Amino acid sequence: MGLIVQKFGGSSVANAERVFNVADIITKTYQEGNNVVVVVSAQGDTTDDLIEKAKEINPKASKREMDMLLTSGEQISASLLAMAIEKLGFPVVSLLGWQAGFQTSSAYGSARINNLVPDRIYKELDKRNIVIVTGFQGINKYRDMTTLGRGGSDTSAVAIAAVMHADRCQIFTDVEGVFTADPRKVPTARKLDVISYDEMLELASLGAQVLNNRSVEMAKKYNVELEVLSSLTRKPGTIVREVNEMEKLNVSGIAKDTNVAQFSIIGVPDRPGLAFRIFSKLGANDINVDIILQSIGRNGTKDISFTVASNNRAATSELLGDYIETLGASSIIYDENVAKVSVVGAGMESHPNIAAQVFEALYNANINIRMISTSEIKISVLIDQELADLAVRVLHDKFFSPDFTA
Amino acid sequence: MGLIVQKFGGSSVANAERVFNVADIITKTYQEGNNVVVVVSAQGDTTDDLIEKAKEINPKASKREMDMLLTSGEQISASLLAMAIEKLGFPVVSLLGWQAGFQTSSAYGSARINNLVPDRIYKELDKRNIVIVTGFQGINKYRDMTTLGRGGSDTSAVAIAAVMHADRCQIFTDVEGVFTADPRKVPTARKLDVISYDEMLELASLGAQVLNNRSVEMAKKYNVELEVLSSLTRKPGTIVREVNEMEKLNVSGIAKDTNVAQFSIIGVPDRPGLAFRIFSKLGANDINVDIILQSIGRNGTKDISFTVASNNRAATSELLGDYIETLGASSIIYDENVAKVSVVGAGMESHPNIAAQVFEALYNANINIRMISTSEIKISVLIDQELADLAVRVLHDKFFSPDFTA
Repeated sequence: MGLIVQKFGGSSVANAERVFNVADIITKTYQEGNNVVVVVSAQGDTTDDLIEKAKEINPKASKREMDMLLTSGEQISASLLAMAIEKLGFPVVSLLGWQAGFQTSSAYGSARINNLVPDRIYKELDKRNIVIVTGFQGINKYRDMTTLGRGGSDTSAVAIAAVMHADRCQIFTDVEGVFTADPRKVPTARKLDVISYDEMLELASLGAQVLNNRSVEMAKKYNVELEVLSSLTRKPGTIVREVNEMEKLNVSGIAKDTNVAQFSIIGVPDRPGLAFRIFSKLGANDINVDIILQSIGRNGTKDISFTVASNNRAATSELLGDYIETLGASSIIYDENVAKVSVVGAGMESHPNIAAQVFEALYNANINIRMISTSEIKISVLIDQELADLAVRVLHDKFFSPDFTA
Repeated sequence: MGLIVQKFGGSSVANAERVFNVADIITKTYQEGNNVVVVVSAQGDTTDDLIEKAKEINPKASKREMDMLLTSGEQISASLLAMAIEKLGFPVVSLLGWQAGFQTSSAYGSARINNLVPDRIYKELDKRNIVIVTGFQGINKYRDMTTLGRGGSDTSAVAIAAVMHADRCQIFTDVEGVFTADPRKVPTARKLDVISYDEMLELASLGAQVLNNRSVEMAKKYNVELEVLSSLTRKPGTIVREVNEMEKLNVSGIAKDTNVAQFSIIGVPDRPGLAFRIFSKLGANDINVDIILQSIGRNGTKDISFTVASNNRAATSELLGDYIETLGASSIIYDENVAKVSVVGAGMESHPNIAAQVFEALYNANINIRMISTSEIKISVLIDQELADLAVRVLHDKFFSPDFTA
């Protein structure tokens, strides 16, 4: 008898029919003799609807009250799912995050799991109950409701799998797994059977929104093997785990991220330490800078370009707008009409010619590269946003055509 | 500085506009220098909508999971109300039933408050926060969500007022107070300034659904003075408290209850103990019998008539249908087309001629009385349902006309 953790996203439980589909998956797993702990998100658009309700009343509501509001979403989906399982004739109990033992930091809206004490889950499993846990939430030291932030249900599931040493942690979504590119945009994209944690992290942070990044980091840290699969088709999905040298693909996927804004600070005096001051100022305000490009100094000044997430655009403008004079720079400009396209592959580090092939493919498609960033397992280029889908396609053709070798 | 408990029903917070109306009432009370604890029900039809959702999935869902589902309703209204108060610029915190200290029995769906430990409420009041508490709910010894049953938010409010020795407990509803009769049916009905707990209990149980009965019992037990008033008109409402002899009205109100079914068991052998066996059988199945009428024995048999609440009609039929033979009775018949009309008044016991006036008024209106029941503070008659509104009107005219004396 194994312990299986299954996580179902909001679209998997969006209506009564889908709730029963999920109940069927769960009870089949249970009937195979397993202990089953299920983590469930709020139904469909519930969270967005609750946010709308809040905005109507107070767009600047405190995060504490927002969390009090939002945690009701999973409470509803968890109890409804339990009722469906009761209907199918199986023993089941739903638990709220705090009942399941999720103790978090006090950062309402983006709390971190400090501790998970699953005494109640063990107790219910001992009674051979199927246990449904509300994802995305916990309780802080003030005994107040907290949420883990968007995608936090993945993290809830991985935390349970890690602490309870589950045999498997299945993340059910509305896609069949992790693909070599977005299958809606690239018809030839194919599903990967296996991907490493690091590749998954790069893909997740690069806009392939299959798994929440924090959950992958936690899975890597505690060596929890994940499976990403569809609750609708129920085909085998993609396994996320450590991969050995032999298994490493040169390129595992092409990702696109349009949540990017490019900034350029023009005419920064060419003195040591100025770039550092800019980026430490942004860092102190929780703004992550991604790609950085610094021009060669000319006439005693240089230009510094960098990218931030689009939702940090306004804050970045505000912070640096005031700072231009202090720096002695001449102006600051930004452009949101950009996209970052990335080629990810764990085997890349031992094949330096992949970068050359990226540039060649983009050049052949007449796509201009604004900025470049590389790591051991990825190459990212910043390009015009309207060319992003084309770029993904030509790169996918390049690296996933039958005759590709690196 | 006083401590005021204010309870707002679902219709008082049904939409954003009404939430702000309520927030205005609360913050005005706070600005007068009071500590304010607010108990709130789920918005508008939320609870009914959640019940519908549950029924779609499993009409026989366990009560535990129903409570898990339903408690989300007040969580939503409490946090939204807190956000509105934040918007008005006042310090506020919302608390779930268990956070506020409501410890209940384990009877999901109709739990009783075993204990209320309002440490957290005191703590928040010490910080001069307005405290919003979700009504209708608590936590049992298993640390599971429970609900107090319909109308339970009234009980939550009275419990807080009792335990914290509040100076006032205001129950805001969509009516302006307690009336001498239903003002929608009797245009001359007038609002009472004061009513005793006992009269209120009779009126509540007789279908004047202003206050939940359990809450009135608790208010009486702990001597909590209640005020029933409208959140919309904000006029002074009706005070519910002990009244002294001088204040006692001969008749304080006329109530109608159509949630009644009349049963008659025909041809019961005239032997001692048979009636007892019938009613103890019903009692053992949690069916309350209200009015009982036993015919004079004839030919060794008698007929027994009694009333139960309409929603117990099917269960009563089933229980007694099987029992007729054992009893040796000939048949059982029931009639749901009945209504109970009651005249309630604390001063009634010292004025025996009120009963005579009730019968006279009904006789003059050509209304036949099927059964009669009296207590120290009320006279109830069972009549045909279609005559009930007429009966209320003629009785109201009788006892509330300017020239009435008893």
